[in-house]
Amino acid sequence: MKAFLLLAHGSRRTESNVEVIELAKRFHEKNSQQFPIVNAGFLELAEPTIPDVIDDAIKQGATELFISPYFLAAGTHVVNDIPSIVATTLKDHPLVKHHLLGHIGGSDAIVELLLNSTLNT
Amino acid sequence: MKAFLLLAHGSRRTESNVEVIELAKRFHEKNSQQFPIVNAGFLELAEPTIPDVIDDAIKQGATELFISPYFLAAGTHVVNDIPSIVATTLKDHPLVKHHLLGHIGGSDAIVELLLNSTLNT
Repeated sequence: MKAFLLLAHGSRRTESNVEVIELAKRFHEKNSQQFPIVNAGFLELAEPTIPDVIDDAIKQGATELFISPYFLAAGTHVVNDIPSIVATTLKDHPLVKHHLLGHIGGSDAIVELLLNSTLNT
Repeated sequence: MKAFLLLAHGSRRTESNVEVIELAKRFHEKNSQQFPIVNAGFLELAEPTIPDVIDDAIKQGATELFISPYFLAAGTHVVNDIPSIVATTLKDHPLVKHHLLGHIGGSDAIVELLLNSTLNT
């Protein structure tokens, strides 16, 4: 069973964290067949934490994790912190597959998304 | 003549700012006919500033600005700071049209972008 985990930095502003959680919900609504488990986790300043959502997904029966760093730039959080936390958390679950996806700022599709945003004005 | 201005927060990490500038370049390469002028500007910690890129676009002949806040969440920067800086900078240019686009985290297309990122693993 596949899980999609959206990992954000976390903010002191509750509204920003809620926006990430809402995005995960929208993702789940559209893709619940492919990803029965979807959750948002935070690196710092908010909960649930990244280990929380990984452990939770595995408890719910996830066998394959798609881990999506919801960051605009490939800073040290994306390059070092998140891979390290994911590896540590998964150490005791050798049978769980995981895919660490690219941060969204690096995707080619972001250019198209920006162009499309100019069409609705 | 249309200009597309990508406005990011700005970071102490040069690499993060460079990534925003590179994204603006990729946008320009793909859409130079529609948007002859494309630039990236920063709210703080990096240059060029937002007034810089607006003034510069107008000097280059832009008559219609598409202003894209490159933020994941609609925090106070997106809701207050950027609209205020844009309005102040454009006060002396009443003939220049502008469109303040939504921040990318709020777009419906982001869900699709996230799904597509799971397909290339």
